[in-house]
Amino acid sequence: MKDSFPFPVARIGVIGGGQLGRMMVKAAKRLGCTCVVLDPYPGSPAGQVAGHQIIGGYHDPAKLRELAESCDVVTYELENTDTETLRQLELEGNKINPAPGLLSILQDKLTQKQFLKDAGIPTSEFVEMAEASLADCEAFGFPLVQKARRGGYDGRGVAVMMDAAAFSSHLPVASLIERFVEAEKELAVMVARNADGDCVAYPTVEMCFRAGENVLDLLLCPAKVDPAIAQQAEDLAIRTIQAFDGVGVFGVEMFLSREGELLVNEIAPRTHNSGHHTIEACVTDQFEQHLRAVLDLPLGSTELLAPAAMINLLGAPDAAGRPVIKGMSEALAIPGVCLHLYGKAEVKPFRKMGHVTVIDQDLESARRKAEQVRDLIEISGEQHP
Amino acid sequence: MKDSFPFPVARIGVIGGGQLGRMMVKAAKRLGCTCVVLDPYPGSPAGQVAGHQIIGGYHDPAKLRELAESCDVVTYELENTDTETLRQLELEGNKINPAPGLLSILQDKLTQKQFLKDAGIPTSEFVEMAEASLADCEAFGFPLVQKARRGGYDGRGVAVMMDAAAFSSHLPVASLIERFVEAEKELAVMVARNADGDCVAYPTVEMCFRAGENVLDLLLCPAKVDPAIAQQAEDLAIRTIQAFDGVGVFGVEMFLSREGELLVNEIAPRTHNSGHHTIEACVTDQFEQHLRAVLDLPLGSTELLAPAAMINLLGAPDAAGRPVIKGMSEALAIPGVCLHLYGKAEVKPFRKMGHVTVIDQDLESARRKAEQVRDLIEISGEQHP
Repeated sequence: MKDSFPFPVARIGVIGGGQLGRMMVKAAKRLGCTCVVLDPYPGSPAGQVAGHQIIGGYHDPAKLRELAESCDVVTYELENTDTETLRQLELEGNKINPAPGLLSILQDKLTQKQFLKDAGIPTSEFVEMAEASLADCEAFGFPLVQKARRGGYDGRGVAVMMDAAAFSSHLPVASLIERFVEAEKELAVMVARNADGDCVAYPTVEMCFRAGENVLDLLLCPAKVDPAIAQQAEDLAIRTIQAFDGVGVFGVEMFLSREGELLVNEIAPRTHNSGHHTIEACVTDQFEQHLRAVLDLPLGSTELLAPAAMINLLGAPDAAGRPVIKGMSEALAIPGVCLHLYGKAEVKPFRKMGHVTVIDQDLESARRKAEQVRDLIEISGEQHP
Repeated sequence: MKDSFPFPVARIGVIGGGQLGRMMVKAAKRLGCTCVVLDPYPGSPAGQVAGHQIIGGYHDPAKLRELAESCDVVTYELENTDTETLRQLELEGNKINPAPGLLSILQDKLTQKQFLKDAGIPTSEFVEMAEASLADCEAFGFPLVQKARRGGYDGRGVAVMMDAAAFSSHLPVASLIERFVEAEKELAVMVARNADGDCVAYPTVEMCFRAGENVLDLLLCPAKVDPAIAQQAEDLAIRTIQAFDGVGVFGVEMFLSREGELLVNEIAPRTHNSGHHTIEACVTDQFEQHLRAVLDLPLGSTELLAPAAMINLLGAPDAAGRPVIKGMSEALAIPGVCLHLYGKAEVKPFRKMGHVTVIDQDLESARRKAEQVRDLIEISGEQHP
């Protein structure tokens, strides 16, 4: 293996300028890399730390080309980009990880499910539903979940139908329908794989959602499950990413059914909200790990140093304008509270403005503190005169 | 206490654009702050992540004023700045931490020693030596250490004289001479204190130097000393910073004499090389802690999560030009290796180009790995055509 690097070690192009990109850029600089961020909004969270941003859309072929041609490797912090252009750029010899072909499979929830099924990865039963149809739903049977094939995120693009009456909430788009899983818990495993095929999993985490909301409310690491289940989840996540030949970091979301069965729900071909705690709680964080993977460097240790609980800091339901953060000082007074604000200059209702990881001696104490912080910090907005 | 912050939480002016500033800027952004860096070299390590750099000297009154007037609080990552201008800016109502008056005492090693002595802090015996004089040295008695009053750094500005014959190596500047301490070990304690007077210490570290060199070679945390000694060192460090009414993070370097006595050697009014391991090994790292202190926020936990060993990555003895990093991949393959490169575009002999912290289950294993990395990684240079 070549083991001599000039400075910069690599020039990394990042599609997307949000918080995931921001944390990736910080890790990249630590590894001696420089970064260029592609994002339509000047002063994006990632652009603020990269020092170099191309202002342009994630689907703009010319801007994607500009990004690829100014970098040694292109990666992304979001799925919602133009895989056709990326495939063309890859054919021309540009290094892009995870591979555009894989991204294209994962972008479409139907092809993603089909791939999982073909690879023998346990996942809930599903059928395509090209146009929303009550008859199709009835034929499949309730309760079910309708998922838009494209563009879903943080619960958008998902309609849960417990019975036929709920069909009125259907999404009027190309979709699939899948069996509703009575989940005991929702788990997630971050997996990293490099081009050599080395593949490592982070400790299984447990994701808690508030009733009726799909944005992650509280994350616990390690998950409060039997250690054998956690191990099975990690093995399954590794098997899944190996099946995809993925290169990079991937978030593998799973259901643990009431019967104790693990079903892969969705795969994110990128760093993930359910891996934020790795910054403080693990030896190598998910962002550095992603870069190690896409740069063909050896993967780092995923060992957990301390139990962790993580919450997102969302904009208040009526927030607008310049962010105002209340309760920050009181929250920082709690030992083990690690605050991450994303540098977003405008707050919107439920917008992800930051997150807090609490590390502590034991998980219950970390969880209590995280819940306390969730009650303390409020991010509202103020209008400029 | 006011507990409502707009975004940005604060605009922080950082005098000095080196690696300490770089790591501080990263922490600042996490806390929702923006940064302006003052440094004479465009593209400085800190400027690369701050996104805003004023190009100017640390002693340039107009540039210091520009910095202060564009920020809510001014701090520094180096001692070598113009305290007269900073004092004037402070009088005009600009917030500057640590206070310029304190910086001015600490900049001059003679006034620093005098302050320690007056405060009853144990430190080695010393006298002023306005001009280097063999007679003065003989009157004081050998072995002794001559220290330049100003401008010393990483062992520069220090002459050790074991006997009168060594007087030929004296520094021809205003200085002090102090008793040479037969140190069993050199220890350091990072201390943080905020304006409310809250004061916390990090676990005592042990600094190992290579014979004949004064740049830190290997740092171990926790220090391999009796826990009672470590506790005494932490207490002494807190007492020292309390005596100075310091606000910010301070490095307190000490000798542990062969007789088991702790003597304060020097105080750095800033984040310090001996606190780099806190990024991975402690709950709150020294850079965030410094910002919490200077922003009047509650201090964070200094708890150690895992034993750590840290080495500096220095430019090779003959290095020049664009950095070339050899052995990086092999080093990253060792579990627990956390690499930090500083983004310096030019390597020079012994220039600090980065550091590596190794965290592991036990200190000896971390130390062995750190020594292995020290042997693996070489940073040489190549000339551009």
